Amino acid sequence: MESDFKNKNVLVVGIGLMGSAFAKSFKSLGFKKVYGHDINEEILQAAEKQMIIDRGCSDVSSVIGECDLVVVCLNLAHAVDFIKSNMKLFKKGSILTDIVGVKRNIIREILPVLRDDVDFIPGHPMAGREKSGEIFTSDKIFAGKNYILTLTEKNKKENIIFVKRLIEEMGFGQIIETDPETHDEKIAFTSQLCHIIAASMVDISDDSKVTRFEGGSFQDMTRIAMINSSMWAELFLANKDKLVEVLDKFQESIEFFKDSIENEEYASITDRFDIIGKKRMEMGK
Amino acid sequence: MESDFKNKNVLVVGIGLMGSAFAKSFKSLGFKKVYGHDINEEILQAAEKQMIIDRGCSDVSSVIGECDLVVVCLNLAHAVDFIKSNMKLFKKGSILTDIVGVKRNIIREILPVLRDDVDFIPGHPMAGREKSGEIFTSDKIFAGKNYILTLTEKNKKENIIFVKRLIEEMGFGQIIETDPETHDEKIAFTSQLCHIIAASMVDISDDSKVTRFEGGSFQDMTRIAMINSSMWAELFLANKDKLVEVLDKFQESIEFFKDSIENEEYASITDRFDIIGKKRMEMGK
Repeated sequence: MESDFKNKNVLVVGIGLMGSAFAKSFKSLGFKKVYGHDINEEILQAAEKQMIIDRGCSDVSSVIGECDLVVVCLNLAHAVDFIKSNMKLFKKGSILTDIVGVKRNIIREILPVLRDDVDFIPGHPMAGREKSGEIFTSDKIFAGKNYILTLTEKNKKENIIFVKRLIEEMGFGQIIETDPETHDEKIAFTSQLCHIIAASMVDISDDSKVTRFEGGSFQDMTRIAMINSSMWAELFLANKDKLVEVLDKFQESIEFFKDSIENEEYASITDRFDIIGKKRMEMGK
Repeated sequence: MESDFKNKNVLVVGIGLMGSAFAKSFKSLGFKKVYGHDINEEILQAAEKQMIIDRGCSDVSSVIGECDLVVVCLNLAHAVDFIKSNMKLFKKGSILTDIVGVKRNIIREILPVLRDDVDFIPGHPMAGREKSGEIFTSDKIFAGKNYILTLTEKNKKENIIFVKRLIEEMGFGQIIETDPETHDEKIAFTSQLCHIIAASMVDISDDSKVTRFEGGSFQDMTRIAMINSSMWAELFLANKDKLVEVLDKFQESIEFFKDSIENEEYASITDRFDIIGKKRMEMGK
């Protein structure tokens, strides 16, 4: 198994939170060479020094043609830009993948310009963490997390098998295959809505010591309000239709509770909560 | 210190999730006798058998007059009812406390009928847990949690000191003193809003397997949707004014994000998120 990785060079594009975790993981899986690209020279030097990557390249033109796997860990606009402007340089038969949090847009942008001898396997690792001030992340953040693949008709069977095995070896849990439309719809709900809710909860607080009055729920629910604002704003706008739809639904449900409370409709609150409690129980811990 | 408890009898009224944890804690602190009252005979027998209480009394009239401390672990309506109907029986000089999650109502109900020789110290332990099917709870749920006291002018200094030391010995963290008005306002935000949000998130889900598409936020944020619906509905209605106000504010903030996303106002989203991120950071982990 591992010998497969030993014959392959990999390029990680963007050595940020996710990129550094990917690079660390590739190093420990024994890839032949782990190259790193970033627009920030200091990041590359630090990553080299900490042996997160074998070599940092501010210019990828000399290495990308040697790489069997290119993992683009950039946000949507930069990922599209990087892939388009380097399309001619990719190695024949190489695998290209990304980690962008919405999938319709990147697929719509890349497929029309994709070379026939480069296999683009769009992915979304459901791992991350709050900002912490550190530059690099441990690959432990992958442990047991879901990894979504939105495969296209063009993907080669052997490459899909390779990427799936790689994801497993990296420590991820379940691999979920779905179409980009379904992905973006579900993500609007399970991820984007959560982040907006957390932000709004903090937004309306006028007391920085309010956590004295809590049992833990408030802090747990709002931790994800500490996010990379530019990355998330881009993702929200890229998934505008799905996200607005889910925000509308959510507001309707909050409205139901608000009205029921205002009108003191005790039974309609308990009835709805009983249904919801059962529903949540079925979703597991 | 401990000898103080050894000379005192305590009665826990309502051997549910919280009552059983209180009783266990009192037993391990070495109270002379830990009596338990519940309307359910089987619960009392089970609690006696598991040595959570020294003696179960379906009728409290014979023991309440011996108790130096009475802790009422019932919901608002039942707590008011119990205290009012047993007012004549309390021991002269005893301390009475409750754990109801909103404080204005119970104080408004009890103070006018309170005997001068009974000291009512209203409390709100910020501990709890989701439904689990088990009847009794471990007193470990108290560890490090906040305990709010909304003291009244009638409270005796020595009784306040006693109750505070007891709370500390039980393993709670910070003890917060505030007035009932502030308590109910803060709780609407840090606790009640969280529960309604969690419920609404589950409410709008039409896919029981949606957690495949998540990194953990959704499950973490919705766990508290599995609640005791009748207890919470009562608390929501008892705190109607404060809760509706906070729900209005919350909806306004969600609306701001929805409008910004609909109109693709990238900068207004990132600006607001930057402020929110800093604000949340100041609130601690």
